[in-house]
Amino acid sequence: MIRNIRVERIAQTPIEQQQIELVERKCIGHPDSIADGIAEAVSRALCRAYLEECGVYLHHNTDQGEIVAGESLPRFGGGKIVRPIYALLTGRATKTFDGINIPADSIAVEAARSYVKSIIPIMNLERDIIVDCRMGTGSTDLRDVFKTCGGSAVMRANDTSFGVGHAPFSETESLVKGVSDYIDEVYRPKNPAIGTDIKVMGLRDGDDITLTLAVAMVDRYLADIGEYVETIARLKETIEGIAPKFTDRKVHIDVNTADDISNGVVFLTVNGTSAEMGDDGSVGRGNRCNGLITPCRPMSMEATSGKNPINHIGKIYNLLSTQLANTCVTEIDGIDEIYIRLLSQIGHPIDQPLVAGVQVIPKAGVELAAIQPAIDAIIDTGLENIGSITEKVIRGDLKTF
Amino acid sequence: MIRNIRVERIAQTPIEQQQIELVERKCIGHPDSIADGIAEAVSRALCRAYLEECGVYLHHNTDQGEIVAGESLPRFGGGKIVRPIYALLTGRATKTFDGINIPADSIAVEAARSYVKSIIPIMNLERDIIVDCRMGTGSTDLRDVFKTCGGSAVMRANDTSFGVGHAPFSETESLVKGVSDYIDEVYRPKNPAIGTDIKVMGLRDGDDITLTLAVAMVDRYLADIGEYVETIARLKETIEGIAPKFTDRKVHIDVNTADDISNGVVFLTVNGTSAEMGDDGSVGRGNRCNGLITPCRPMSMEATSGKNPINHIGKIYNLLSTQLANTCVTEIDGIDEIYIRLLSQIGHPIDQPLVAGVQVIPKAGVELAAIQPAIDAIIDTGLENIGSITEKVIRGDLKTF
Amino acid sequence: MIRNIRVERIAQTPIEQQQIELVERKCIGHPDSIADGIAEAVSRALCRAYLEECGVYLHHNTDQGEIVAGESLPRFGGGKIVRPIYALLTGRATKTFDGINIPADSIAVEAARSYVKSIIPIMNLERDIIVDCRMGTGSTDLRDVFKTCGGSAVMRANDTSFGVGHAPFSETESLVKGVSDYIDEVYRPKNPAIGTDIKVMGLRDGDDITLTLAVAMVDRYLADIGEYVETIARLKETIEGIAPKFTDRKVHIDVNTADDISNGVVFLTVNGTSAEMGDDGSVGRGNRCNGLITPCRPMSMEATSGKNPINHIGKIYNLLSTQLANTCVTEIDGIDEIYIRLLSQIGHPIDQPLVAGVQVIPKAGVELAAIQPAIDAIIDTGLENIGSITEKVIRGDLKTF
Amino acid sequence: MIRNIRVERIAQTPIEQQQIELVERKCIGHPDSIADGIAEAVSRALCRAYLEECGVYLHHNTDQGEIVAGESLPRFGGGKIVRPIYALLTGRATKTFDGINIPADSIAVEAARSYVKSIIPIMNLERDIIVDCRMGTGSTDLRDVFKTCGGSAVMRANDTSFGVGHAPFSETESLVKGVSDYIDEVYRPKNPAIGTDIKVMGLRDGDDITLTLAVAMVDRYLADIGEYVETIARLKETIEGIAPKFTDRKVHIDVNTADDISNGVVFLTVNGTSAEMGDDGSVGRGNRCNGLITPCRPMSMEATSGKNPINHIGKIYNLLSTQLANTCVTEIDGIDEIYIRLLSQIGHPIDQPLVAGVQVIPKAGVELAAIQPAIDAIIDTGLENIGSITEKVIRGDLKTF
Repeated sequence: MIRNIRVERIAQTPIEQQQIELVERKCIGHPDSIADGIAEAVSRALCRAYLEECGVYLHHNTDQGEIVAGESLPRFGGGKIVRPIYALLTGRATKTFDGINIPADSIAVEAARSYVKSIIPIMNLERDIIVDCRMGTGSTDLRDVFKTCGGSAVMRANDTSFGVGHAPFSETESLVKGVSDYIDEVYRPKNPAIGTDIKVMGLRDGDDITLTLAVAMVDRYLADIGEYVETIARLKETIEGIAPKFTDRKVHIDVNTADDISNGVVFLTVNGTSAEMGDDGSVGRGNRCNGLITPCRPMSMEATSGKNPINHIGKIYNLLSTQLANTCVTEIDGIDEIYIRLLSQIGHPIDQPLVAGVQVIPKAGVELAAIQPAIDAIIDTGLENIGSITEKVIRGDLKTF
Repeated sequence: MIRNIRVERIAQTPIEQQQIELVERKCIGHPDSIADGIAEAVSRALCRAYLEECGVYLHHNTDQGEIVAGESLPRFGGGKIVRPIYALLTGRATKTFDGINIPADSIAVEAARSYVKSIIPIMNLERDIIVDCRMGTGSTDLRDVFKTCGGSAVMRANDTSFGVGHAPFSETESLVKGVSDYIDEVYRPKNPAIGTDIKVMGLRDGDDITLTLAVAMVDRYLADIGEYVETIARLKETIEGIAPKFTDRKVHIDVNTADDISNGVVFLTVNGTSAEMGDDGSVGRGNRCNGLITPCRPMSMEATSGKNPINHIGKIYNLLSTQLANTCVTEIDGIDEIYIRLLSQIGHPIDQPLVAGVQVIPKAGVELAAIQPAIDAIIDTGLENIGSITEKVIRGDLKTF
Repeated sequence: MIRNIRVERIAQTPIEQQQIELVERKCIGHPDSIADGIAEAVSRALCRAYLEECGVYLHHNTDQGEIVAGESLPRFGGGKIVRPIYALLTGRATKTFDGINIPADSIAVEAARSYVKSIIPIMNLERDIIVDCRMGTGSTDLRDVFKTCGGSAVMRANDTSFGVGHAPFSETESLVKGVSDYIDEVYRPKNPAIGTDIKVMGLRDGDDITLTLAVAMVDRYLADIGEYVETIARLKETIEGIAPKFTDRKVHIDVNTADDISNGVVFLTVNGTSAEMGDDGSVGRGNRCNGLITPCRPMSMEATSGKNPINHIGKIYNLLSTQLANTCVTEIDGIDEIYIRLLSQIGHPIDQPLVAGVQVIPKAGVELAAIQPAIDAIIDTGLENIGSITEKVIRGDLKTF
Repeated sequence: MIRNIRVERIAQTPIEQQQIELVERKCIGHPDSIADGIAEAVSRALCRAYLEECGVYLHHNTDQGEIVAGESLPRFGGGKIVRPIYALLTGRATKTFDGINIPADSIAVEAARSYVKSIIPIMNLERDIIVDCRMGTGSTDLRDVFKTCGGSAVMRANDTSFGVGHAPFSETESLVKGVSDYIDEVYRPKNPAIGTDIKVMGLRDGDDITLTLAVAMVDRYLADIGEYVETIARLKETIEGIAPKFTDRKVHIDVNTADDISNGVVFLTVNGTSAEMGDDGSVGRGNRCNGLITPCRPMSMEATSGKNPINHIGKIYNLLSTQLANTCVTEIDGIDEIYIRLLSQIGHPIDQPLVAGVQVIPKAGVELAAIQPAIDAIIDTGLENIGSITEKVIRGDLKTF
């Protein structure tokens, strides 16, 4: 069956030529990101358990869950957690299948705790966090849809929903994501005072980019406010140093602008995340699956994290459309910008979206007709191999936030 | 101080001329909407209590919270709830101020229960829902920002964040919103079998619009599957009848397409919401503050519901930008589409955004220069009177989802 | 099969002749009693549902559960609840039987809320209490025992356990219970300022009885501390007036002795129970099934409330032994004191205890041999008709605390 | 001030000469004992923190709390936990004092988890248990009482309450406690298949003692039902071997009598406690502070575990009266049985009970007058040094269950 792929050229001021551009990223330890990460960790752990115990992936959906903030008393040299963070795992999972019991609740609790340990190793899990679980079992109709196609190669959509993706990243997008990655991968390992809860807000106004970072600092690694100020200054400098890798535009860096140093009002934390002291988090409220929040671009409201990677459109189509957009700009010359939207119809095979809508801004002088066949082919092949998304997710090769 | 308002003309294929358009609405009883509505009801109740007891609005933020699905056994003629819905109220609120104790937790629980009763009057609150509360108190720095300007006219931004709004609605947007409103206001009151949990998904493919509705039907008002089928058919017909009010395009209506009538698999519920049987909900995961999810338009990820309406940018700027966009298209001739983005800087007065970015597609033949002063003026005045947003929200004159 | 009934005469100083006697009662609104009452209300509601939906009583055990105190700000004329009481329902219940689903969780929540309303009508259930539920399903082996004898007349013991009862009440016991009943039935209806949470502690030292009452007073019915003092004084006087009905001994009454009137430290509450402001409660921690705590008498540690009345020894044997002791002293002349202990063996029919141990202090001049046959007969008949306990419990004819 | 000590001789059939005697012990891993142990561990951790951070012990009361059973699938060779145990910490604690914040919630969670680990080392705390916390702060009046005497040597009673203790243990009591201790200290270390959740029920009928043990067996250490049967048999034999150390009477041992071996119905668990599969537990529902439940003896209903050891009568007087009774029988010749009851009056110094009531059964030929002065002296000295109870509790030298 031929897939319904619609490619159109749109007249649109390319993002780089628009006056204002906004880009945001909530890094790994931001409360919303913690919620996303836990949701995804639980889903992956369930997938592994289902495969091991039942030989198939079973229905589940853990794309909900709440991080209720604790209370802390940070202090230079090392403060304390007063009231633990409360993490509530919800969603639903298959708990029995074909006579086999799958300990979904225990798996979920363990996966969540283990995930938190992995991203915030300095947290004392015995006293700084409570992981609770109120996971249910799915509603009958959804499970039926799932069972129906248990043995076949192509799953059926769990919902009428859609995914969107775009490529390539703008300079501001690359900068925001690049700075976040640099801190995570290069800078924090050597500078443990930099917490994992960082919000990076990028504003491009014409050719001036302002990067505003709110960085939760870790109290035990800072002797006093002097060291705090110094550490912030060094981070600012470092980011100024790497910014030119991503853009030739003028980049202004602000870090913890809400601080009032003379009054001792600073963004100091015990474990490096504001979840310990007032900021709640929820799945699906932070980054989209490309790692960014981009209000100047089309976005899906669907939480990608925690959804099952077998038949859940809100997850699979967001991941796939993003991947396809990237493949198009990588493999095809002549694309300035590309936006891909995949729309499912509940109960239909997921490799046959109701429509795959593609919007292209070709490079100057490029005719749409010249590149359309290549785009068509990439999308057709991507849908053909849609099962690979599932596998990559379970292996952890695809990030969801 | 002059406000930083940047108006630019963008070359962009107007939405109505794009090939594909997607629009979604989660109606009042959808789990995500229930979460939004509770969050907003709690915030409004707190505002009233603060004003009454302390004479000022105090810091709070209840834009989190989780609806954990229950379990039900719907049956034609009337089924039963097996496990109650579990609603967790979180967020934070000021609980003491100037020696006065504000019973924030009790207020929150009462507001939530009362809200649910108001939107789902058929629900038996004594057995169908558990409303729990784990609300904390805010982190110090945020409250300080708040206290600082307690007496002044203009609040300071709680965060570096932004809001976006657009106008006018496209035909598909008007249709989706219009159908939802029609059911809520006109059709359900006479047809109680139509539950409040409806998801309306609109897809425009060129000049063909497909409206897919997933409607939770209420079992007690349906004698058997025959009446179910009939009721669905009548609803479909009714919508087909009103669609021409919103568009001349061809509109195809699908209702509960996942049903498998011959096998008795239908979307039947006890109280008219899937929250009773498997679907969780979260604040901020559903409609944007214009009542829609519009992945082809710029959107903010911020939850508008539940945030305090005093200084919380994620709420105020989303509401204001939407309102300003509407005012522009109403009062100014010559605008095809307008997008407004307001960006705050933490700690700065909220009537002085870092930038107010405006993108306009003028009507054919209209010069930007001709309409720009009027746009500037509307935005400037809107920011000048930003306090009116707060008042409208507390009075319930502005919807947030 | 002959029942193993062992009657022995014990040489023991009768309670009335002992120097010191202690008797305590926690009235209906004491946190422990609220927990007991909820547990029992849930069990009875489940029994009714099982009978109605399945035709038989099914396994359940709700003799656990916790009342976590809230926070209140009582004030003369009417204060407020700041944080609701949190009531957690636990235990386990049969949720499916023979293809029928029993909505045990919803039943439990409704029964608990309805019970609280019945005993504390002034409580605003929409904001003063949260009723949560984490009820499980029973462990397999217990249910098997139960199923085995589903159709037979005599149940099998769920456990190796025992019950104890004594009769008659001593004067101090009668006084403590009588004062509590008088307040509940006669005095409070006309004096609503007297809360339901009263702890009555009776100490008899020779022929002097001191009755110490801690009475939670209801703020809305008291204009000021003067009225408080007056109301307390009137209550004291009233009790002094009725005490002679129960004893000729000298009775000294103390009410709210911990008050410090001059400093305004009084036992004032919003709803008449300390559960609203700091005192937690648990099932089985308060009164034994005769309504008293009697540390000078043999007692069972088993919670009577909430256990299923079908095969749960901890409930049935405590109720039965108390009833049998009362029957013996009522119907047989010559008994000064009687103590009955029934010991079960798990899996054996409940009408065949391992041993029914009876200790008697005959009246002066009475030979044990003269009354033993009558005692034997009463106990034998009581065991024969043990099923009537079940029925009485379900109808609410037997109090459990 | 002279203390009010009342010693009386009572005519009473000594326990060993009564026909029937019942004694029960819930061992360390029984759900009620787990609850007790957690409550006590939390209280001790708070005491240590208060002393360290504030220099004084502060008000708290954690003698509540609930163990909500999980769900498990035991299997010979090693099964799994399906749903974690849910432990709810409640009660109240001082959280700020003199400007110092004490992280009571975090301390409680950590103490609870650490305690569970210590008694059930085979439990995987990352997936087999959820420790939640809803601890409040105390009601004002109680704390005032406490504050008043913060600096003085002698605390004031928190309540009008009492404690009771007796000595010496009867043979049956010694046997029940001795068997339990033997298993804990000697047998289980070499026989890990014996779980920590053991209920020992002792019935003495004349000179025949029946000891019924319900022992949760640990699945991972048992290959099959054969090994299960064998292990039970060996345990039975072992207990038969040690019983003569405690009594010359005939002792009959029953272990897991509810098993139905041929149908595979056995008491098998994953972690050695029924809390994992259906049995809830509560503080104060199990053993009294002498380690036993003795319905033939006077008992207090007060939970000893978790109460603060500074001024909480329900704890201190139970521990002290038990200790004093033991001292009397150890140091004074001529006592067959002694029962001590200490009764407090709220607000009065705890070393001055309202009455210390002592009941003695002297040995044949011993006059009360001959031993009374020695008894008086022991009790007087014990009350004089009542503060040592506090110290011993905090050091962990006194068991509370």
